[in-house]
This record gives sequence, C-alpha cells and structure tokens, in this order.
Amino acid sequence: MPEKPRVILAPHPRTVARVFASADLARLSAMAEVVWGQDEPMPQAAFEEALPEAVAIVHGGWTFGGEEVLRRAGRLRAIMEVMGGHGKPGFPYDYCFAHQIRVLSCSPAFGQQVAELALALALAGARDVASADRVFRAGTETYQMAGNQGTFLLRDKPVGIVGLGAIARALLPLLAPFHCQVLAYDPWLPDNMIRGAGCEPLPLEDLLARARVIFVLAVPTSENRALIGRERLALIQRDAVFVLMSRAHLVDFDALTECVLEGRFRAAIDVFPREPLPLDHPIRRAEGAILSAHRAGSVEEGHQEIGRMVTDDLGLILRGLPPRLMLRAEPELVARTALRR
Amino acid sequence: MPEKPRVILAPHPRTVARVFASADLARLSAMAEVVWGQDEPMPQAAFEEALPEAVAIVHGGWTFGGEEVLRRAGRLRAIMEVMGGHGKPGFPYDYCFAHQIRVLSCSPAFGQQVAELALALALAGARDVASADRVFRAGTETYQMAGNQGTFLLRDKPVGIVGLGAIARALLPLLAPFHCQVLAYDPWLPDNMIRGAGCEPLPLEDLLARARVIFVLAVPTSENRALIGRERLALIQRDAVFVLMSRAHLVDFDALTECVLEGRFRAAIDVFPREPLPLDHPIRRAEGAILSAHRAGSVEEGHQEIGRMVTDDLGLILRGLPPRLMLRAEPELVARTALRR
Amino acid sequence: MPEKPRVILAPHPRTVARVFASADLARLSAMAEVVWGQDEPMPQAAFEEALPEAVAIVHGGWTFGGEEVLRRAGRLRAIMEVMGGHGKPGFPYDYCFAHQIRVLSCSPAFGQQVAELALALALAGARDVASADRVFRAGTETYQMAGNQGTFLLRDKPVGIVGLGAIARALLPLLAPFHCQVLAYDPWLPDNMIRGAGCEPLPLEDLLARARVIFVLAVPTSENRALIGRERLALIQRDAVFVLMSRAHLVDFDALTECVLEGRFRAAIDVFPREPLPLDHPIRRAEGAILSAHRAGSVEEGHQEIGRMVTDDLGLILRGLPPRLMLRAEPELVARTALRR
Amino acid sequence: MPEKPRVILAPHPRTVARVFASADLARLSAMAEVVWGQDEPMPQAAFEEALPEAVAIVHGGWTFGGEEVLRRAGRLRAIMEVMGGHGKPGFPYDYCFAHQIRVLSCSPAFGQQVAELALALALAGARDVASADRVFRAGTETYQMAGNQGTFLLRDKPVGIVGLGAIARALLPLLAPFHCQVLAYDPWLPDNMIRGAGCEPLPLEDLLARARVIFVLAVPTSENRALIGRERLALIQRDAVFVLMSRAHLVDFDALTECVLEGRFRAAIDVFPREPLPLDHPIRRAEGAILSAHRAGSVEEGHQEIGRMVTDDLGLILRGLPPRLMLRAEPELVARTALRR
Repeated sequence: MPEKPRVILAPHPRTVARVFASADLARLSAMAEVVWGQDEPMPQAAFEEALPEAVAIVHGGWTFGGEEVLRRAGRLRAIMEVMGGHGKPGFPYDYCFAHQIRVLSCSPAFGQQVAELALALALAGARDVASADRVFRAGTETYQMAGNQGTFLLRDKPVGIVGLGAIARALLPLLAPFHCQVLAYDPWLPDNMIRGAGCEPLPLEDLLARARVIFVLAVPTSENRALIGRERLALIQRDAVFVLMSRAHLVDFDALTECVLEGRFRAAIDVFPREPLPLDHPIRRAEGAILSAHRAGSVEEGHQEIGRMVTDDLGLILRGLPPRLMLRAEPELVARTALRR
Repeated sequence: MPEKPRVILAPHPRTVARVFASADLARLSAMAEVVWGQDEPMPQAAFEEALPEAVAIVHGGWTFGGEEVLRRAGRLRAIMEVMGGHGKPGFPYDYCFAHQIRVLSCSPAFGQQVAELALALALAGARDVASADRVFRAGTETYQMAGNQGTFLLRDKPVGIVGLGAIARALLPLLAPFHCQVLAYDPWLPDNMIRGAGCEPLPLEDLLARARVIFVLAVPTSENRALIGRERLALIQRDAVFVLMSRAHLVDFDALTECVLEGRFRAAIDVFPREPLPLDHPIRRAEGAILSAHRAGSVEEGHQEIGRMVTDDLGLILRGLPPRLMLRAEPELVARTALRR
Repeated sequence: MPEKPRVILAPHPRTVARVFASADLARLSAMAEVVWGQDEPMPQAAFEEALPEAVAIVHGGWTFGGEEVLRRAGRLRAIMEVMGGHGKPGFPYDYCFAHQIRVLSCSPAFGQQVAELALALALAGARDVASADRVFRAGTETYQMAGNQGTFLLRDKPVGIVGLGAIARALLPLLAPFHCQVLAYDPWLPDNMIRGAGCEPLPLEDLLARARVIFVLAVPTSENRALIGRERLALIQRDAVFVLMSRAHLVDFDALTECVLEGRFRAAIDVFPREPLPLDHPIRRAEGAILSAHRAGSVEEGHQEIGRMVTDDLGLILRGLPPRLMLRAEPELVARTALRR
Repeated sequence: MPEKPRVILAPHPRTVARVFASADLARLSAMAEVVWGQDEPMPQAAFEEALPEAVAIVHGGWTFGGEEVLRRAGRLRAIMEVMGGHGKPGFPYDYCFAHQIRVLSCSPAFGQQVAELALALALAGARDVASADRVFRAGTETYQMAGNQGTFLLRDKPVGIVGLGAIARALLPLLAPFHCQVLAYDPWLPDNMIRGAGCEPLPLEDLLARARVIFVLAVPTSENRALIGRERLALIQRDAVFVLMSRAHLVDFDALTECVLEGRFRAAIDVFPREPLPLDHPIRRAEGAILSAHRAGSVEEGHQEIGRMVTDDLGLILRGLPPRLMLRAEPELVARTALRR
C-alpha cells in the first residue's frame, strides 16, 4: 500500500476545530497523513523536519522563512492559508511561482458573511433601524410617517460599489432583487467584465456623486490608501448611506467622521483606523452612523467554510487536478497587496 | 365633445400631494373631471351631490354611508381607497358586489417597503446590528469573534412566513438569493399554490419549531387574534429571530415580551398592541429586541405608488377594462377582515 | 354528520382521468359528493336535476342553457371550465356576476407549456434547428461557420411580446437569463404594470420594427382580428423570427406567408387559419418557417395541472374562501372575447 | 515618449476582422504596436524576428516551435489563442509556466452560444420541434393531442450535465427558470463546488439513469474517450433526450446510433466522429434524432467576443495586472487535454 501524502496542518492562531468541521477533518485525514495538526504554533524545527515530505502546508500565518527553507520542500505543491489574505511581506512568492507551488488563500470563504452584513447595514441605514431602536429605548420614538424622516427604499436606487472582488460577487446577487442600477469602480478589471457582472463601470468621482448607497469593498493595497479622501467625500449625495466594509485604510477617516457628524450623509462602519477605537473618538457620538466592531468576517459558522475549501482543494491537488475554490496568489498582485492587515 | 367622466377625489386623512405625484395628478385630470380634490374631509352634502354623476370614488376612509347612499350612484364603477386595507365595518360591500362596483384597496402599494424593512430587521437581528451599535456608543464593544456571539448567516437557514399575502410576495424575491428553505403557513391558500411560490406549506406549530427567522405578515382578522400565543411561542428555537411586521394582534404580546426578556429568542418588532407604547413597557429594555415605531409602511416615496396605482387602474376602468393593480375586495374575505386597524 | 356539498363533474370532451390525477380525484371526492363524474356528455335532464343542490359545476363546454336554468341553482358558488377559455357566446355571465357565482377558467394551466414551446421555437428559429436537421437528412449539410449563415444569439437581443397575459407571464422568466430587452404591447394593461413586469411598453409598430424575436401571445378578441396585417408585417426586421403562438386570428396569414416565402423574415407557427391546413398551402414549403400543428397546449402531463387547479380552488370555495388559481371571468372582458376558438 | 509595447497578432486561420470588432481593434492599436496583424499565416522568420520585443502573442494555432524559440522572448508575458482550446501537443507549456508567461485560451467566449443551442436542442427534443416540422411539410401532421405523443415539459424534470465547465456555467442560468433538478458529473470538481453551482453531484451511471434530459458538455481528454459506452447508454431512460454538444469522442457513437434507431431514447447531436459524416451513416435516417452539423460554436457574432476578451485581458496584462477573462492553461490539465480537436 502506498504511503499517504503528508500535509502540514498548522492553523494557529485559528484552531483546528474552528476551521474544520469534523466531517471535513475526517475527509482530510482519509486522504492525507496530517503532520502537526495542533492548535499551538508549530515549532520551526518540527516544520523543517516535515517539509521534505510535505505535499501541502495549511497555515494560519507564515512564519517559516523564505526561499531558503522552501528549497528543501521537494514535493510541495500547495501552501494554503486560513486567515484571509494574500500579499504578506516576506512570503517567498517568486519561488513558489517559479516552481508551480500553488499559493492559496481562504479569503473567498468570507464573501457571503461580509456581503450579508453589508446589505444589513445598507438597509439599516436606509431605514434608520439602529437609531429608531435607540429612540424607542429612550422613549422618544415617533410613529409612522413622523418616524420616517429621510428614510428611503433600496429598490430602484443607484448603488455604488468600490472594489468588485469576492465580497462584491457575493453581494451582487443579494442586491439583484432590488433592481438597483449598480455602479462600480475597480481599476483592476476591464469595463466589459464589470458590465458582464451587471454593473456600470464608472470613474470613482462619478460613482460617489450618483450613488444613494456606497459600498466600500476594495482590498487595501499600497495604491489605495485614503483613496476616498476629503474632496471625494464631498461628492457624496446628501442622505446617501456610505457603507465601509473592507478597511478604514481606503478612506480619510477623519474627514468621513466630520461628514457624518455634520449630517452630510449617513454611514455604516465596520472597520476603523485603530481597533479598539479610542473611547473619545467623535464617531461614537454621530447620530447618522451605525457602528460595528469589525464584525463582518467573524461569524462562527463561516469559519468552517474555510476548512471545507481547504479540504476540497487539497483533494483536487492530491488527485493531480488544479484547485478551484481558494484564491490563487497572482504574481502581479502580491506586491501591491503587501500590507499589514 | 363628450363630457369627461367625473371622479370624486377625497383622500383625507392623506393629502392629494402626498398620494399623487404631479405627473399622476396630471394624468388623472386629463382622463377625468376631478370633483372635490381637496385635502380636507369632503362634506357629506357635497359628496351626495356629486354621487349621481361619479364614475369612481377615491377616498381615504369611508364615512359616506351605506347602501342607501350608493343607490343614487347610477354610474359608479369603482370605489378606491388610499389608506391600505379592506374590511371596514359598515361599508356597503354587498351592494357593490351585486352591482359590479369594483371595491379596490391600495394595500399592494406597501408590499415593497414593508418587505425591505422586514429583511432589514431580520438581517439586523441575525447580526446584532442594533445592539452592536449600542455597545459601541457605550464604549463597551468587542471586536471580531468576540463581538459575534450568537450571530448567524441568513444563507441556507430555514425561514418561516406566517401569512403569504402581498407583503410576502414582495419579500420572497428579496429572500431568494439567500437560498433559504422557506416554510409558509397560510390557511387561505392551497398547498399547491404555496409550493408554486417556492415555499413549503406547514402547520403553524411546525413552522415555528423549524424556522431560524420567522416573519409575521398575516392580515389581522377576526380569526387570528393572538394566533401565536404563549404555547406556540414556546416552540420557537433558541436564538431564532422573530420579526413582527403586520399587526401585534397576531401574537400574545405579553408572552412575546417575556420570551425576549428571558433571552429565549430575539425579536424585531414594528407593531405594538398600543401605539404609542406606554413608556414603562418592559420590551423597551429587552436586550434581544430591535424596536421600530410602526415605520414599515410610511416611507414617503412609497405613498406615491398609491397614486400611481389609482391612476393606472382608473385609466383601465374608464376604458372599460378591469383594474389590475389595486386589491379587489373579495366577498368571502371582507367579513373576516372587518377589524379596526 | 352533515352532507357533503355536491359538485357536478362533466368534463366532456375531456375525460376525468386526463384532467384529474388520481390523487386529485381522491381529494375531490373527499371534499365533495361528485355528481355525474363520467366522460360522456351529461344529459340535460340529469344536469337540471342535480342543479338545485350543486355548489359547483366543473364542465368541458357549456351546453346547459342560460339564466333561466341557473335560476334553479340556489346553492351554486362556482362554474369551472376545463377546456381553456372564457368568453363563450350564450353563457349566462351577467346572471353569475350579479349573484356572485364565480366563473372560472383553467386557462392559466397552459401558460408553462405554451411558453416552453414558444422559447423552443424562438431558439430553433434563431439557430435554424429544423432546417439544419432537414439538410442533414438530405445529405447537404454544411459544417461550422458555413452552416451558420444568418443565425444569431438570443442573448441581449430586443424581444417583442404582443399580449402580456398568462402565457407571457410564464415566458418572461424563461427569457430573463438571456438579458433581452423585452418590448411589450398590451392595450389592456397600464404602462406602469408593463414596466413592473420588466418590459418596455411600446406601440405595436415600434415593437415590430425593433424586435429581433416577436412572440404573438394575445388572446383573440373581437377587436384584434388581423391586428398584424400586411403593413405592420412590413415593419419587421429582415432576419427577425416571428413566433405565432396564440391564434392565427391575430395576423393576416396570407401576408405572413408571403413574407416568409420571400425570405423577408423567419417564422415559427403553431396556429393556422384552418386546421388541418389545406395540403397545398404554400407555407408548407417555406424554407424560413418552422411549422407545428397546434401543439403548444396539448402536452399530456399539462392536463393534470387543470385538475389540480380545479381541486385546489374548489377546496377554497367550499371553505368559504376566494379561489386563487383559475382565471376569473371579468365582466369587462367576456364580451370582447366572445369568439369561437 | 516611451515606445508602445509590441503584440504579435497572427490569428490565422481566423481573420483579424472576424475576431476583432473595429472598436476592439482600435483599442488594441492604441495600447500596443501590432506586429503582423494580417490574415495570412505569419512566416516563421518574421515571427522569430519579432519575438524578442514581443510582450504578447495572439495566435490562431501554434506552429512556431518549442522552448528553444521562446527562450528568445525575453519580454513575453502572454500567449493568447483565438481558436478555442488548450492542450495542444508540442506547445511549450512547461517553459511558460516556469517563466510566468500566461497561456490563455478564448474558449470561454463560446459558452453562451453553445449553451443556447444546447437548450434549443433540448427543448426541440422534448417537444418534437424538428419532426413536427418534418411531418407538416410532408402533409401528415396531426393536431393538438394527437401531435403530442411522447412530448414533455422541461419544467421540474431531472436534467443531467456531464462536464461542469464553461459551457455548463453558461447553460445553468438558462435552465434555472425551469426549476429542474440538475444532476452533474464532473470528476475534476469537488462535490461541494458542484453543489455550490446548484447541482447534485452524482456518479455518471446514476445521472444517466435518472435524467430526462442529458447534456454532454465535457472537454475531450485522453481519459474520457467513449466514456459513455454501450452499457452506460443502456441506463438512459426511455424517452429521455440525449444532447451531445462537446465532442463525439465522449460516446460510443455506433451504440448511440443504434439506441436512437431503436427508439430507445431521443438524441440531439451537434458533433460527429467524422465531419463531414458519411452520407450513408444510419443516424441520418433516425426519426428520434435532431442533427446539427457542428454548428454550436460558430455563430458569427460570437467570434467578436473573442476579440473583446483578448483586448480586455491584454489591457490588464500591459498594466501589470492579471488577466481575467480568458481561460488560463493549468499545468495539471494540459497534459490530459492533449488531443486533436
């Protein structure tokens, strides 16, 4: 009987049980000999010892060195990360690309949960769900038409999406039944592809000026820091809802805070320039804001989708087939996304 | 030139301008001679004087008497209400049915806005949107996984709908991209029709026990008061979200309040047994509740859909065609729905 | 034990077994005492004897007389036909309307099967499916590009629908994934309702001039005979596909034949001015035609949908609820549709 | 001003004008200096002379040699083919993979047109569109129910798909409104991904036994020759429709012919073991067949989608971004698909 292929499983800081449903762990164990497989950080010595026989590495953060280490990994076909992103500084991408070692990220696993919260926040913003609850608890609620000042329907409204990646692909189907015109800005995609996704490609300025709801979903890169700065925020319609999902990195957060405090538009914010946000940050008092503490991608049940993707793609790789579910690192992009999370 | 047909327009307590966009009012005036057309209540004398020539009556609440009055309305083909419901006590339904006078309600105009808030509340309940904002304002927020205790995705969850009428028809398309199994209870519909709408027909008890999100959307009738009482509430899953949209009439509100205060399940509530709700009502302090002050059907832009429907259907009626958009009073149902709003 | 309500079941010329699946017949028998229930025509004497106790009549063609007969039907609440249309000359509509006897047609049961054939013919026309098979059998086929002269994709093409009724409602979802712009002409519907169905309302001439595929789906009435005559046919684009589904009544069939023989455009035709069509009719030799012998609404499995609808609606009626599935006769329309089939 | 990057354009046997709409050719010329750009085969000498400066090569069939030639292509980032498939014998894949030269195929451009014909043939098979036309031309047509022996609706029927690649991804949305249960067999995909596409993963035998319509869409490989042989064909339901789209390679064509001649099931066939098919091949006389001469991927308008994809992806590549539209050659798959077309 031939030996089973070896797979290093070192998901720290995630835990094995959180990432892998028991059925997926059983599948994994049936197809491969799991090396390490513990929740603690894998010691470098153990890692290096396992490397020459490893066909794949599943990790929660790459701390194992560069090209000089991987040179000893003669059977390695895939490095699969379970935290959620490519572009980590120091990772030996070039070596992997040249040697056809697949570098795979679990980030698509988060699309649905981020998209659901994005829609929740957009609808909550359009209908004042959080503030209506707040005044009700204070005993100052007003009923029916009086309680609907400035609310609006999502149906048929122009919606803007900044960054048409995995989150947007999960969000677009959720928006479809609202018959919104979806405006999109994504400099990494050709216009025809944006149109093929049912969106209208637009310069960022036009998108901001026309959309009633704006979703910021772009991956942070070295090129898009404060992409939406003070002047661009000034283009946003009065009474629009600005939904900040991917990273605070993409906006001038001070300027955004001012806009919301002034009542220029409403905002729903899941990510902040510092987390925890200082207790005296003025956005905490903004009537027109809905605040959420980086909660979009951490729903418990969502994590087991990571394990399912890893197990499925590993199954393909071990059968000599290309992976299908995890996101491949792209040579052109990893340099641009080399940012701290 | 033949005289234009006369239409009594007496939308009080709504106003002409709120119900009719100017383009619709212009269309209406082009096809008919508008009688009254003011925001104040129409005096009975003026009404009775106009009645013999009137082809249609558009009203905001029927105060004009019974069969004895309508007998003088020899040209009348339609009575169209702009508040939102059939089944008013004292309205001369039988006379209208026997004389083929269409009795029409604008209630379908509210489907989309109620459905959008219902989805907003469901998603907000599943992801703790209001309470996350509350703790953030209090400075006690927790981030990422710590801030996601008990949250869940809507995708693939069983969802229950109590009452598969116009609101549900607007809600179902919004739910479709979440791939939920939709369970439905509606004793007025055949099972095949429920299945045809993509739902699984179920007894109410089974629905309550299986659904992770429950939408109460049924029209209140003489038969469904406190339909969901204490014993049925006890069937609901721990950590389900109970979304009460149509009327508090349908539940035992005291029992519901207790369940939410005990943390048995979460609730999002737009309608209350008394409005305004007394300031000391304990639901105001329930951590697991999202409260909204009867705000589902009062978004301003939604009201002009009423005028569009009235104008469109009136256009058909004046051309000798059946109305298509407003809801017809059904002989079988008006008696059952004879309730105060 | 109370007596079961009596229902006259006289589906001739259809047969009981073709209309009712055994499960539906069992449901029917459980809720009502079936009178007659045979495949042969019901004798008038038996009918009149049963009438005073009948709560509903299910028939395959009304031969039982007028108002004078129905006056004896003191318990009658519904007359349900199982052939497929309202508007039969001589039927006592007015009596039924005045006495709130529901007059119901099974015509919606045919929507799906007619829509599927309509799409089949449109796609077959766009891709020359029938003629490609014909030349292949003749041994004169040409491959790949040479065999694709004049073919086109349905995706993104303008499509026109004449008559936005039950067939169109079944067809529109089938067309949706092709992302066609759907142009519609229906003088019985308000423009807003046409837009609400996702179509662009247009005058007939503009529709004919702009559409690449034209579906004729309108119910024949006294007003639309030869609606699409020679001059309107002349508006149709070269290489369009004209799909004639509802009745030949709607077009000038001689002119249509000439257009197709001249190669002006292609046609797919399911209905003819005389059936059987004379053997020497020139359309039989037209290269650009796809011919089908009135086959759209006669797929066997489709007939049991009639029985399901009848049983479901009867169940509602017997419980004192309004019917939901069958098409109600409309006072405004029955006169206009009083045509021989 | 920096020099524009050079792109070799040698689409033979396709022509420039057929592949590139004029707007796309203008875009291409604006972003790159086009080398060759003629319809004739590019002479090897000219090719080798242009190679050192070329950033991309667009070709219609690789005749330019192996690794030894590409070694001189120091700036090359992409090789883009415009005929429709990867896996050509002799192509220097390994060199390209090791040097991060993207090897791209236009095959996704054909998805929609093949999918539309596949649906056309399936519906035509289910409703006997071609044979109904044939008997009508012969004057032997029968009307209504008599002309519908053995026809069926697609709605709610189990449908099987063999090969869930680009064609299937275009076909699935077209099938969605028919509410079919879609069974799928694809050994290159994990079950979860098949489920994620809305299909039920099944062994091939079970799929064949359960489906009413079977679509054969798999790419031919060295492993799937005659995958559906005589024994597996025997599993197919009487009165199913077998739609052969991708390659005759996948079936035992003699056995298939026998089945259809015997009336075991119906077939719609677009691809043949030899093309042109010998004139005396018995499938030409099979009543239960619909025959089409390899016409699925040759609709004229479809070819310009190739040029759009090439131009879009080239635009990304020249901006230092990864291509998005064309299909990348996968190291794991090219060996398996090394087949003559």
